[in-house]
Parts: sequence; structure tokens; C-alpha cells
Amino acid sequence: MTNYKNFPMVPRVIFGPGCFDQLGEILLPKRIHSEAPFIFLVDDVFEGSPLVSRIPLMFNDQIIFISADEEPKTDQVDVLVEKIKFQYGALPSGIIGIGGGTLLDLAKAVAIMLANPGKAYEYQGWDLVKKPSIYHVGIPTISGTGAEVSRTTVLLGPEKKLGINSDFTTFDQVLLDPELTKGVPKEQWFYTGMDCYIHCIESLNGTFLNAFSQSYGEKALDLCKEVYLEELQEGDARDKLMMASWHGGMSIAYSQVGVAHAMSYGLSYLLGVRHGVGNCLVFQHLEEFYPEGVALFNAMKDRHHIVLPEGICKNLTEDDFDIMIKVALSLEPLWENALGKEWRKQITPDKLRSIYQMI
Amino acid sequence: MTNYKNFPMVPRVIFGPGCFDQLGEILLPKRIHSEAPFIFLVDDVFEGSPLVSRIPLMFNDQIIFISADEEPKTDQVDVLVEKIKFQYGALPSGIIGIGGGTLLDLAKAVAIMLANPGKAYEYQGWDLVKKPSIYHVGIPTISGTGAEVSRTTVLLGPEKKLGINSDFTTFDQVLLDPELTKGVPKEQWFYTGMDCYIHCIESLNGTFLNAFSQSYGEKALDLCKEVYLEELQEGDARDKLMMASWHGGMSIAYSQVGVAHAMSYGLSYLLGVRHGVGNCLVFQHLEEFYPEGVALFNAMKDRHHIVLPEGICKNLTEDDFDIMIKVALSLEPLWENALGKEWRKQITPDKLRSIYQMI
Repeated sequence: MTNYKNFPMVPRVIFGPGCFDQLGEILLPKRIHSEAPFIFLVDDVFEGSPLVSRIPLMFNDQIIFISADEEPKTDQVDVLVEKIKFQYGALPSGIIGIGGGTLLDLAKAVAIMLANPGKAYEYQGWDLVKKPSIYHVGIPTISGTGAEVSRTTVLLGPEKKLGINSDFTTFDQVLLDPELTKGVPKEQWFYTGMDCYIHCIESLNGTFLNAFSQSYGEKALDLCKEVYLEELQEGDARDKLMMASWHGGMSIAYSQVGVAHAMSYGLSYLLGVRHGVGNCLVFQHLEEFYPEGVALFNAMKDRHHIVLPEGICKNLTEDDFDIMIKVALSLEPLWENALGKEWRKQITPDKLRSIYQMI
Repeated sequence: MTNYKNFPMVPRVIFGPGCFDQLGEILLPKRIHSEAPFIFLVDDVFEGSPLVSRIPLMFNDQIIFISADEEPKTDQVDVLVEKIKFQYGALPSGIIGIGGGTLLDLAKAVAIMLANPGKAYEYQGWDLVKKPSIYHVGIPTISGTGAEVSRTTVLLGPEKKLGINSDFTTFDQVLLDPELTKGVPKEQWFYTGMDCYIHCIESLNGTFLNAFSQSYGEKALDLCKEVYLEELQEGDARDKLMMASWHGGMSIAYSQVGVAHAMSYGLSYLLGVRHGVGNCLVFQHLEEFYPEGVALFNAMKDRHHIVLPEGICKNLTEDDFDIMIKVALSLEPLWENALGKEWRKQITPDKLRSIYQMI
């Protein structure tokens, strides 16, 4: 008998341009008591910006600014958890992540680790979290990662880049305010949006696909095409890309990603390449696996005059390649989704090396 | 400032042909203790069917068969709640609705009323429920109503047909097993599917539309077109109609229905016309409001050789018309969604009478 996943959805979502101003009323009933603060983890690009003054601070609430220049790390989570535990006698009322995938993933991981013993890296994998995380809210300020809706938080650990995949990872509340994505630089807008696009291609072409995942993936793909290939009003494009990210996240939640994500994880692990651009760097060379998807990707890239970095892997040693290949191959569910149970017949270390060498 | 809805989503969903067999493992951790039963409200068409033997009964769990021949009523909810309270000392562990919109709506309403004082009709309206309902699970056996995902339970009360719209109405768990829809008779398959189709048309053409609702509505509409206008494999069609219902329900959840639903409520209230067919009876005469939607509806109707009943309102008295018109006009959010804040300039009792007279 097939064993289907009983999937946790975000139980509360608010959508609308300007809805960030409703955050205060949303948090109020979730405040445990006046000594249990809300901790806002905020991308440090917003330091000093008008957005920060709109964060509804009360009592001993705290904003912690965090750089998203690097991928989120397990020890970074551990440090944040220690800091919060040390500073307050009791558990916080909740963690609010405001930013892109990095900040959202950190917020999820911190909310888990405040309620579970040990170190974050011990929970990288599938369903290793035993206790419910504390209340946590996701507020994306860039669209594409799907982190706002997924049941994972992808972290660089001492041994691997891998998600903490669990039912307790999913946010308790998501606030989708497309206006928060207004100032995103063009390259980042493209790379992060392509994260969503690549999710869709990998999900729709995967062996794990079912009608649930397909319907979300198709919608996200349609929206990506609208945003990146048609002439939309700016506000309309922001709204639609935010919904694309949402549906794309739902699609992979009930299926899985594939070749680009597996190999991109290797790049991130070794070189710290950011997830969005890493996906693009790999995906451009995957015609063999996703011919139509890569053709459309190239059309979008050209339309927006995006020039991908080159020579990333030029000076790497054999050991470096081996590390990336090992990380990529360890992501077995991704390969099985992409190519079926017999994926090892197609995918060898040499095959992966030849792709990495083109990057 | 716009005040956006902070929308409750179903926090757990399982999808897959045959996933009904996982119901036992899903319910087990939700069992409060051995004296607190699960109550299964099941459409009586399944009495004696193989499905019933697959219901995972334990301890003092109980199946209550209920006819879906009539629309669900507030006093029916009150009787069920009394019966359950009388029979068991403590509250049940949960209520599981298995059937179409009627059974799903009854399950939601019973779960609410087991935790709230008074009579069900006192809660018809928006946000009148104060206490969280008990754990409740929705298992649709026909696709289209969107009741599995909505935050309302639409009931015929002593004075009106109106939903109990509340954050506590939404199911805690939904199980989507397309195989459960296998034996649905063709006419019912059509009328209930058209409930979804009409949701989409009303949502997509409404003034309350936003990008969130639009993305779900467009996907549901695409799926309806596939199911009713293309040649699909049977299993594929079942899967897709179940997802259409889901997305259609999400779409209206974040916007609203319109003219067809408002007028159909009048028909149901006075004549007990079932919701699905009532929608179709009204919608066919709404070219003025939804020209493209009605044209496509006619195409689907013809393709499946569906003949709508005629002369339903032929022998009604003036008083009868007045009652239907009063019920329809009372649904102000539906009219405002359909036609904007100035809807009263377009919609008069005479206007509605002229449409009802064609049915």
C-alpha cells in the first residue's frame, strides 16, 4: 500500500499589499505574558529602513538583525538559541522571521531549537524533531524560495547542507505583503524567482508527482511565465510572484525537488554559493534532464539581460569536486524523484563532475 | 487602511488514491482517551457498502448515517449535538464527516456546537463562534463544493440559509481520496462540479478579487475545463476534480461568491432545492452578469447531455417569490462582491423576480 504524506499546511495566512501593518493585531493574542517577548529576526538590509519602525514592538520584544549574505548555518542557529535563552528567563512568545529564505529558515530553525534539546545539526534529516516548536511567523520580503510554506529549513551543517524536515518546521502564521518586495535588486529578484521556477520544473517532471502537487506546480509555473515573460504592472508582478512562490512551495512540499537542487546544494556547501544563483548555475546545464525547462529558463534570462557568473569551479581541486559530488549524491530523495528508483544507473560521480566542470 | 482577512487554512491534508486506509493512523494520536469516541457522520448512501467496513472503529466509536437528500439544517445539528451529549459523559475525541457538502457541513457544525452553548441558528453569520470547536475531519466523497477547505458551514435555519462563518469552522484535518468519488451518479457529478465552476466564475469576476484568490480561482477553473471539456482518463479526472474543488474553495475563502449563490440560497430556503442544482438553475440565466462563464457552462452542460429541470418556480405565489427575494437580498457581501458597493442600483426585487420566473 502506498503511504501518503499527511502534510502540514500553514494554518493561518494573510495576504495583501500593506498587510504588514496588521502584524501587531495578529501577534497580540499569541503573547504568553509581558515577560515573554517576540523576537524578530530581520534581514540586516532593513536596518534603519522605514520597515523597521513599523515592527510592532511591545514590552521586552527584540529585533535581531542578521546578514543574509551567507547561507544559514546550524551553528548560527545554536548561537541564536543560546543568546535568547541566556537573555530571557522564559521561552519567548514567538519568533518572527522577516526577510528572504535565509531569514525564514533561521526563524523556523530557532523556533524548533528553542523547544528541543541538543544542537541544530542533529536534526538535519527527515522527521527527527520530537517536540513542537514555539510559535513562529514567516514574513517574506523577496519571492521565490517557498520557505514561507515548506516543512523544511535548509541549513549548512558541519557535514552537510540539508533541511530539518518536520511537521513542526512549518510556520504557524505567514504574512504575505507584496509591497515588502519593492526594493529587491534586479539580479536577486531574478535568481530568487528562478528558485520557484526550478521548483516547478523539478516537481512537474518528477516521478513523485501527483495531482495535488501538479495543480500547485502548474499554477506556480503559469505565474512565473506571466511575471518573467509578459508585460505586467509592477504591483501586479509583485503580487503574482509572491503567489508563485507560495504555490511552488506547496508543489514541492507534496513531491520533491530534483537534479538542480541536489547539485546546487553541493555548490553551496563547498563554496557558500547562494541558493538562488546556485540553482541557476546548475540548471542552465541540465538540458539533458529538463529540455523544455532549460529552454524557457534561457528565454527568461535573456529577456531580463541576466548574465550568470562563470568559472566558479575553474580552480577547484579534485578533492573539492569530490566533496560537492558527495553532498549532491547524499540527497537520495531528490535523485529518486528526478529519475526514479534506478537513478544510480544514470548518475555517477563522473557524470556530476562533468556538469560541475562546466560551471 | 484596508483590513485584510487573516485566513485559517486546513492545517493538515493528505491526498492520494486509497489514502482513506490511513485514517486510523491519523486519528490515533487525536484520541483523548478510550471513553471519548470518534463520531463518524456518514452519508447514508454508503450504508452497507465496503467503505463502511474500512472505517477504523475503536472502543465506543460510533457511525451515524445521515441522508443528504435535503440540505443540512440548524435543528438537525442541534439534535445531533443533543444525542451525542446525552449518549456520552464527556466530549468526543472528534467528529469525522464522510460525504458531500451536506455531511461535511454537518460535521463542522456539530464540532462547533459541541463546544459552544445555545442553538446552531444563533451562530449563522460572520464570526459569532467564540470557543474553538472540537477536532474535526473532512473526507469528501464527491468533488466540487469546496466545503472541505472553507471556513463556513452553510445551514438552513428557521429564518435564513446562511453559513456559520468562523475561524473555528475550518476542518483540523482533510483527507482527499479521489477513489471515494468513484460511484457518484453522473448528474450529481455534474451539478456538484458546477458548484466549483460557479465559485470560480463568481470569485474571478468579483470586486473582492486579489492575487491570492485569483491564483486559486484560475487553477480551479483550468481544472474544471480539463475535466468537463477534455478527454481524460477516469482516474485522472477524479484526481483533478478533487483538486479543482480544493482550489475553488480556497479562492472563495479569500474573496466571496456572487449572484448565482445569492439567488440559489433563496431557492434552497423556500423549496429545499439542493445547492448544486440550484446554482445551475440560476446560473444559466446570468448571461448579463457572467457572459463568458454562462457560455462555457452551456458548453459543458451540452457535452455531458445534462438537462436541467424546468418550471421549478412556475406555480409559486407572490409571497413565495418575496421570500426567495428576501433571502437572496440579505446576502449583502455576495452582492457587493459581484457588483460593487453600489449594487443596490442594479439589483431590485423586480430584477430578481424576473430571473426567478425563468427557472
